[in-house]
Order: sequence, then structure tokens, then C-alpha cells
Amino acid sequence: MNEQPLFRRLKDYSYTQLEVLAGEIRDTITRVVSSNTGHLASNLGTVELTIALYRVFDPDEDIIIWDTGHQAYTHKLLTGRFGSFGSLRKKGGISGFLNRKESPYDFFGAGHVGTALPAAMGIEQAENIFRNAKNIVVVAGDGALTSGLALEALNQMKDIGSKIKVVVNDNGMSIGKNVGSLSSSLAELRLNPVYREMKGDLKNALETMRLGSLEQFLSKIKSGLKASILGGNIFEDMGLNYVGPVKGHDFQELEAVFSAVKQLPEPFFVHIVTKKGKGLEYAESNPTRFHSVSRIDPENGEKISRNGELTYSEVFGNVLTELAKKDPSISAITAAMPDGTGLAGFAAKHTARFFDLGITEQLCTTFASGMAAAGTKPVFAVYSTFLQRALDQLIHDVALQDLPVLFAIDRAGIVGQDGATHNGIFDISFLSMIPNMQILAPSSLKELANMIFTLFTEKWMDHPTAIRYPRETELQNIDDIVSNLRKMDPFKWEKVIDGKETAILATGSMVSRSREAALLNGCALFNCRSIKPLDKAALGKIFADYDLIVTVEEGIMSGGFGSNVALEASRQNYNGRIDIIAIEDRFSSHGTREEVLNELGLDARGIENRISKLRGEKNASNYRIR
Amino acid sequence: MNEQPLFRRLKDYSYTQLEVLAGEIRDTITRVVSSNTGHLASNLGTVELTIALYRVFDPDEDIIIWDTGHQAYTHKLLTGRFGSFGSLRKKGGISGFLNRKESPYDFFGAGHVGTALPAAMGIEQAENIFRNAKNIVVVAGDGALTSGLALEALNQMKDIGSKIKVVVNDNGMSIGKNVGSLSSSLAELRLNPVYREMKGDLKNALETMRLGSLEQFLSKIKSGLKASILGGNIFEDMGLNYVGPVKGHDFQELEAVFSAVKQLPEPFFVHIVTKKGKGLEYAESNPTRFHSVSRIDPENGEKISRNGELTYSEVFGNVLTELAKKDPSISAITAAMPDGTGLAGFAAKHTARFFDLGITEQLCTTFASGMAAAGTKPVFAVYSTFLQRALDQLIHDVALQDLPVLFAIDRAGIVGQDGATHNGIFDISFLSMIPNMQILAPSSLKELANMIFTLFTEKWMDHPTAIRYPRETELQNIDDIVSNLRKMDPFKWEKVIDGKETAILATGSMVSRSREAALLNGCALFNCRSIKPLDKAALGKIFADYDLIVTVEEGIMSGGFGSNVALEASRQNYNGRIDIIAIEDRFSSHGTREEVLNELGLDARGIENRISKLRGEKNASNYRIR
Repeated sequence: MNEQPLFRRLKDYSYTQLEVLAGEIRDTITRVVSSNTGHLASNLGTVELTIALYRVFDPDEDIIIWDTGHQAYTHKLLTGRFGSFGSLRKKGGISGFLNRKESPYDFFGAGHVGTALPAAMGIEQAENIFRNAKNIVVVAGDGALTSGLALEALNQMKDIGSKIKVVVNDNGMSIGKNVGSLSSSLAELRLNPVYREMKGDLKNALETMRLGSLEQFLSKIKSGLKASILGGNIFEDMGLNYVGPVKGHDFQELEAVFSAVKQLPEPFFVHIVTKKGKGLEYAESNPTRFHSVSRIDPENGEKISRNGELTYSEVFGNVLTELAKKDPSISAITAAMPDGTGLAGFAAKHTARFFDLGITEQLCTTFASGMAAAGTKPVFAVYSTFLQRALDQLIHDVALQDLPVLFAIDRAGIVGQDGATHNGIFDISFLSMIPNMQILAPSSLKELANMIFTLFTEKWMDHPTAIRYPRETELQNIDDIVSNLRKMDPFKWEKVIDGKETAILATGSMVSRSREAALLNGCALFNCRSIKPLDKAALGKIFADYDLIVTVEEGIMSGGFGSNVALEASRQNYNGRIDIIAIEDRFSSHGTREEVLNELGLDARGIENRISKLRGEKNASNYRIR
Repeated sequence: MNEQPLFRRLKDYSYTQLEVLAGEIRDTITRVVSSNTGHLASNLGTVELTIALYRVFDPDEDIIIWDTGHQAYTHKLLTGRFGSFGSLRKKGGISGFLNRKESPYDFFGAGHVGTALPAAMGIEQAENIFRNAKNIVVVAGDGALTSGLALEALNQMKDIGSKIKVVVNDNGMSIGKNVGSLSSSLAELRLNPVYREMKGDLKNALETMRLGSLEQFLSKIKSGLKASILGGNIFEDMGLNYVGPVKGHDFQELEAVFSAVKQLPEPFFVHIVTKKGKGLEYAESNPTRFHSVSRIDPENGEKISRNGELTYSEVFGNVLTELAKKDPSISAITAAMPDGTGLAGFAAKHTARFFDLGITEQLCTTFASGMAAAGTKPVFAVYSTFLQRALDQLIHDVALQDLPVLFAIDRAGIVGQDGATHNGIFDISFLSMIPNMQILAPSSLKELANMIFTLFTEKWMDHPTAIRYPRETELQNIDDIVSNLRKMDPFKWEKVIDGKETAILATGSMVSRSREAALLNGCALFNCRSIKPLDKAALGKIFADYDLIVTVEEGIMSGGFGSNVALEASRQNYNGRIDIIAIEDRFSSHGTREEVLNELGLDARGIENRISKLRGEKNASNYRIR
């Protein structure tokens, strides 16, 4: 990219000019996000913070690491991406998160929460080895402070002698409402008058700009704080010098604080209070709804209508809420995603049995395991990509003890515009390798509803079970679905199209996408709704009846569904050919879900092409036949 | 088990009788552990703590969850396992950790650190749903407080309204020296005189045993503490009522504190100071060395000699220490396992480049990724089973950004007596599924040494790379190995035995165990030291030359090495037969490493039997031949 980064000129701006720039940035973000989708409210909150930060710290000299990336759009605009910002989240365009390949100013890539401080601590030690004394700044949201990864890092900062400045953008709500004691501490501090009195001292210190007075300021802050807040400040206890709360939309105050902490070779926790959605009325008044948006009208925030399209998340949430009315032992757990996972209704209806534990996938998993050990029926609803954070808990706390927890794995497969950090392509593999674990994948909304209904009403599971479903919609009515729940056998495969010689074994989202290939080529199509265990009876018959088996799944190939069908084929000494359609061994980029599936050969056309080709080879006897 | 649990009689004991019992328990633990191996010093520290706890809380009524299990031997002895304790860690005997199947008093199984509080929080909510008002107690070591899982839970206790009593056994050193701010807080509290003055009040309160005076005591504790400690108490900040430090070997003080906190429906953090190794002179004076022991003489702690046997860990540590002398960009990271991973020597020699970050596998991984992003060569040495905690960091922070971190994966495969919680059988599968990740497995100590030497001196890696090696020894001399380092191609497979028709593709520990099978059956044997990428050139030739391929690996089958060889065979349309020898889809129990390998068919004899059988089938033309 040839664009001169705007941050280099910031120092020359007057405060009035900065206000104009902030307005321009807000307009750009609102315009692009409302059309391209993306994180809106969180990014509107950090405009002044970023501008002030880049007037004091220099992205060419200092190392600035943004956490997660959903509040870093201003950072992108200021570091050479103003011109290309219109391509945000589009195929080939710039990423909605942070990406080392996109810009040298994205020093460490991210998409998941809580990675910036741990990475920055490693970078700091590396710079120490090279004897570079660079300023290192981490900008994180308050929600990041709930995640174990960030907490592990905070707890080690003092011992490792870190000098990192941790700038916390506290909008009091991470994605939804914030939870946890660290967040409560922030809230208490926000309201404390003593902190605010410090501001005068700070201003005086900065006017003279001598290190002596800064040190005085610092010691005053320290003793002032410690004396004033009964019980102390948790961040000070963790070895960080706390400064705050700072008005997050006030250029002069922000600049003063950043300048002060830059002078001092000590670790700082800079607590900045911002307003999520700042400057856009409808986003300010409903920041959770506008945290991340699909296409909206930028004037009023109205959704560009979905025309009755229903998501898997909505079906999951509604069915579970319904079942919980009759079964008091059902509870639902989320890691700060009550809306995304479709559990908002459950939370409203069954408040005492709904647990939002913050961004803590590890805790949620072991907590669920504890609930199961005590005889209840816990459901942990989580995006596939975030469940990666809980592998050891899945193995050690759930599966090894064979405790019946239900994992509702949302956003399984390609998520589209959020890109590689958020794609849920590994869950089949990492769950399949775990003994006792069962994995189901419905091929339609109704099937999801009936699966959940059956698990809860027929006979509660003997083993931990995961149901994975995609970020997709169908034209369906939720009331129809909820009032027509039916029992079914979730562990039996179903032949949905008859055919001969070739059997297509598809799972979940790939069943409908394989229909055309089956019909055009006269193949049988099976809905393999149980990924683990494989339906051995059905599979035995398939081995006997077909001499070409093609598996199709929306997940990585290594260790996936097809791979396990191939293992079974080898065990049963199957003599036909097996072809596996899955995601090859590389990370893919962002784009719409359909664009990415197309690129991966996992759309209807790609599957059809592949199968036609295989059939052609078969007819040319280009491979063995039994 | 028919043994009457001893805890039921504890209330009838006089303090003199309790002292006698404590002595008996210590003798039993020392006698059994010195012969059977296991955790010694940590268990000697919790004898009085456990006895006092079970005089106040009732394991039949209350729910008591032990963290990790390496300090729960007294718990085992008191809950019906005195008679069977001699079978500790033996095949078919009782587990060295906690196991739900072993005893109803092991309410939640464990082996990894930090799971007890998260599980207890789930159990508490489940009991709330059932309207059971049980006392719930968690006993954890101070080391557990460094792990993200425990920190996530601590941070949520207040918000969820938990009433759990967290009893922290603070011996000031977890496994080795402890690190982290929470630990420092404990240390500060330990030395604070104000806490100690509270003891008089507590004693008075207990003598009258009225709730009123207890509440007074409690409020006194609170205000007393908060006024006295400048900066406050981090645990109070997290919403827990702090009590401590309590003398951990004083029955009366322990009992008084447990009785007090039992009366109050509030969450407590009970800080108990114990001496690791208590009562056994050599263990007290060197608690790290005697944390966990192999066979020793119980009289003096002398090791039953290993006769010059050298571990993979020692070779790894020594070679890395040597290479780091010439290359200042090499650094080493451990998650509280400096001894176990063989890095103690590195830590002594290259202190500034050695990072022990506590029990924080997530942090260690992202920290290493940061170090790599800043251009250094970080090595994270970690047991396979604990790397499970860092899957998301491996995917999101390391592999997605393709940063060259070296993972030295120790204890890969079956670990033996530590059992299922500690077996490292999943790493091949969960690493293979990650794009950009490379996996190597040396088949001997020398090969490990040469691999590391080559990676660091030939050309630093382009991609993140893992080297996995087993908990095994060879009769070798470390100086010989370090002074004879040689370059080799770690990514090329090697034919170690010539043969025809059948090729055995073995990895790591399985190469030597497959020799006999190869020699007796005239098969070729390949050392497949690169698990990912597969050596495609070698594999292509193998597909052309052999009509039976048998893969052998020490890891779970689903998604493992053999599975990926089978995928490649399917891709290349291989017409021969593939048989995969790996660990089937179930958890195995403890026993010696060789006993468990034998049970899994992964010892030399098992492999030989399987291959002879396959050859027999082949000769009977019981399957296709090209």
C-alpha cells in the first residue's frame, strides 16, 4: 500500500482540526460498516483514543499492539488504510481484524480476545535481548480482562519486570454487559472522586514537563489512590501503576495522560472510559445491538431486512428455552455471547439457569462439567472458533470423566467476512480425536430442533455430545418449528437420494449442497448427521453397495469426518475408492460465506464438478473397481 | 471398596491421637511413594490440613473438591483407601490423582491444575437448582492460582454469588519456585503481623461459638485487613473474604478457622501455610527435588540408581543450553516445569533468556509467538498433555501468523503411572490439523540432539515446528552426544531396514519397537521422523514399491500419522492395503509405561503379532493385491 500513513501528520493538527478529523473518521466508519457489515459501536468509541495515542506514541518507532481488532478501525485509517477502507471485510479487501500480512503496523495479528498483552510481553523480552528500548503499548477492551489468557499475563507482568503500558478502553460492556470482578473494579474506579482530583496535578506536571514533577505526580497518584480506596486497587496489586479514569473523548486529557506515562519506564494500567457507539445516536443508545452489525441503513440503523430468514442460533435458543420450561434441570451457559448464540430469550425466561461467565471458554467448559457431575443438564453454547480455547477442559474435565455436557457449537465452518481468525473449521477434528465424545451435525433448521428435542426428552445423553451448525439461514418460521418438534434418532444416517455405484456421504451444511451433484450423477446421497460415532451399520452397507464413496464436510481434512470414514474403510478392508472433500491444509481469507465456500470447492457447483470428474475417471476405469 | 472411611471416626480423636494418626499417614505415604513412585513432598504437607478439614466438613454431606490431586493422598487414606494404598499408581491399583470411578469421595476427577474451582462453581449452581444447601469446599495449591482457568473462575466468583470456601495450601512453591502477582500477594500476607493478631479474636469467637461473635470477627477481619495493608488484598478485591495466614500443621488453629468459615454463608479464601515435605527431613530441605519422585530409599531419599540412563528431556536441555552459548537469540520458556523439561541447566546458564511464566500454557504459547514476531528464536518446552491447554493459541497466535516458534513436546505418548490425565496421546492429531504446523519425532536421543542442532544452525525454521519425544531413557552419555552433533535433514524419512512387499512406517518411539517385526517378517522399516509434512517423495516411492503399508505411532488414531498417510494414499489412489497401528478411541488406565504400551499393542511384541497376522492374511490373499 502506497498511502502515506496519516498518523505522521497528526502532531501538526490543532485541536479543532483533530475534532474535524474525528468526525471524518466516524463518518467513514459508519458509512463503510453499514454497507460492508462489521464492528460499529466498538469502533466509534475509540476514535479520539487512537488519535491521541498516535500523537504521543509513534507507530514507526514504538510498538503498539491492539487486542482483538474490533476497535482498531481508526488505527487502520491512520496507518495507511484510509484509501482502501471501502474494501473492509470484502474478498481481497482489508481485514475486519488485525493482520500482519496486511500492514507492518498490525504488528501482531488478532481476532480472538486477550492475546495482545501476552504477545507484547514476548515482544518486550525479545527487544530486551536485542537491547532495543522501545515503548510498548497494548490497547485492550475491558472485556479482554475476563479471559484466562489475559489474566495469566497480568498476573506475570510484575515478576517478569515488564514496562508495558496497558491502555484499557473501558466502555463498561465488552460485547454485551460485562461480568467479573476486574470489571467491577473498573466500574468502582470510574465513580471514585479522588482519581479525578489528580487531573489538576497532572496538568501542572505536563505544563512544566519535567520528569521530576511527573515522578511527584506518580507518587501522588500511588499514595492518593491507595489511601482513598478501601480495599485497594486490584491493578496496583498486580504490580501496575494505575492511572485513570481518563475521559476517553477528550483529546487534551488523553494526550496529557499518554505523555505522562510515556516518560516513565514503568508498567502502567491506563484506564480510559469511552462511550460505545459515540457520536452516532442510535448506536450510543443501543451499543450492544450495534456492537457488530449486518447491513444497516446508516441514517437510522434500521436493518436491511432479512425477509423472514431464520438462523440456526435462533432455532437453538428458542427450542432450548421451550424445553427448559418443562425440565428444570436444563441450564445454558455462554462466554459473553448471549445474543450471538441465540440465548438472549433463554436468559430472559430462565434467568436463574442462565450463566454468562464472561469471555472464559475454559471456565464455561469445566463449569458445565461440574454441573453435569452434579446431575443437571448443562448446555454450553459457543462458537466453534472459540471452543478451541477449551480443548484441555474438553479432554480432561468432560470426556475423561465421560460427563454428559451438551456443546451447542455455533458458527461451525466458514463464517465469511470475519475471516480466518473466526472460521470454525477445526472442531470436527479436535472433537473426533477425543474418546467418549459424540458429534452431531444437523442438515437443516428442523433437524437441529428435533435433535435437541430428542436429546432432552427421549433419554439424556450417556456421553458428552456436540452439535455443530453453520452460520446460515433458512426461510422458516420459528413458531412452526417449535410447535412441530419430533423425535428422531440423531445417531442414524439417512439416505436422502437413491442412486447407484457412488455414495455421497455429506454432513451438516454440505447435505443440501450435495443434492445437485447426486441428482445429476445418479449418486446416492446420505445425510450423515452423526459424525461420531459413525453409523457403523449404515456404513457397512455402504461399503458393500458402492464402489466409490465421496465424503463432504465443512471442516479441515486432517482428522475430520472423511478421514475417519477412510479409517473405518481400512479397518473393514473396503476395496472401493474413497474421495474426501474437505478443507485442505491452509488458512483461507475473508469474503462472504458463499465466496469462501466457492473458493474451497465446498459450494454446490464445486461439489458437483468434483463428483462429475470422479465419475468420469471411474468410467474410464482409471482406478480399481472391486 | 468395603473399607469404612476413616474420616467418620475423626471427631472422636483427641489431639494426641490425631498427632499419632498424622504420623502414621506420613509413614504410609513415605513408604508407599518411595517404592511405587509418586508425589511425596506435596502430600506430606497436607496431612494436618486434610485431617482438620474432615473433622469440620463431612465428606458424606459436604462436597469437597481437590485440585490436581498431587496433594490428596491423605484424602485418599481417610476416604476408604487405606487398605488399598499399597497399590498406588500400580496397574489396576489406585490412581495417583483423583478419579470419579475410584471413589465417590473423588467428586470431580483431576490431574491437571486449576480445575477444582471452576467445577465447584458449576456444582454449586447445580445444587442451587436442586435447592440443596451443601457446603462446597475447594482445596487448591498456590500454584493453581497462576493458571488462566483458575483465574477466570476467581474473577467470576463474586458475580455468580458463589459461597464456596477456597482453601489454598500455600507452600510457596507449587512444583518449583512460584511466580506471579497472586503468589507474591500470598507471600506478603504470610509476613503481615496484623493477620496474626486476629487469631485471638477468632479463638474467643469459637469458644462461645455464637454466630454473632463470628460475624463480629469477620467484620473485624475485613476492616482490620483493609486498613492494615496498603494497597489492599487482592483476594478481597475479587470478592472473597480472606482469612489467614493459618498455621498449616496446627490442628487447633486449622479446626478453628474451618469451623468459623463453615458457619458463614459467604465465599472465603482460607490461606493456609504449609511446609512442603513436612516431617521428612530430606524432603523438607529439598522440596522441589522430592515434589514427585521415582523409586527412592525411604530412609534417606537416595535415588535407586538409574545406571547411566539418559532421558530425552536431559538431551533436549543440554543441547539447547549449548547452542544458546553461540546464538544469543535463542530463548527457552517453561510453564512451571524447569526441572521436568530439562531446562534447569539452561536457566542457570542463560538466566536472562529463560522464562518460567507459571502454570500458563496459554500465555507461554502467545508469549513465544510474540518473541518470534520480534525476530528471536523461542523454544517452549512443555509436556504434551499440558500443551492441550494452548490449542487456540497454537492456531490463532502461532500458526495463522506462521511464526517460527519451536515446541519441545516432552512426555509425548504414554507417561505410565501418572495415567490418563497425563498421557500425551493427542498432540499428533491436534497439531496435524493446523495449517503451517510442522511435527517431528526423533527415534533416538542422538536424533533429537541432531534435529535441534540442525534447526538452529542450518537455517531457522520457516514455520512453527513441534518436536515430540517420549518419557524414555537410553544408555547414553550426554557429553558424547553434545560433542558429536551432526546436521541431518529432519524432514526426510529414512529406510532403516530393507525388506519387500511390506513397509512399516514408524514414528519416534515406535521405530525401535518395530525392528523385530520388520526383521522377522522381512519387511522394510522406515523411520518417519517428519510426521508433518509427510515426506511425499519417500511416500510416493513407498506406494509404488509395497503392497502392504503398516503405520505405527504412539498417539490416538483419529487424525494421527497413519490417518494422514491413509489420506495421502487416497489422494494418490494407492491400490495396496494400509493398516494403522495407533491408540484406539478410548482412554487407558495407569501402569508402567511398558505395561500400558503392551496393553495397547504398542510394544515390540504387539507390533510383531499384528504384522505377522497381516502378512498371514496377505499370503492367504485375503485382500486385494495390486
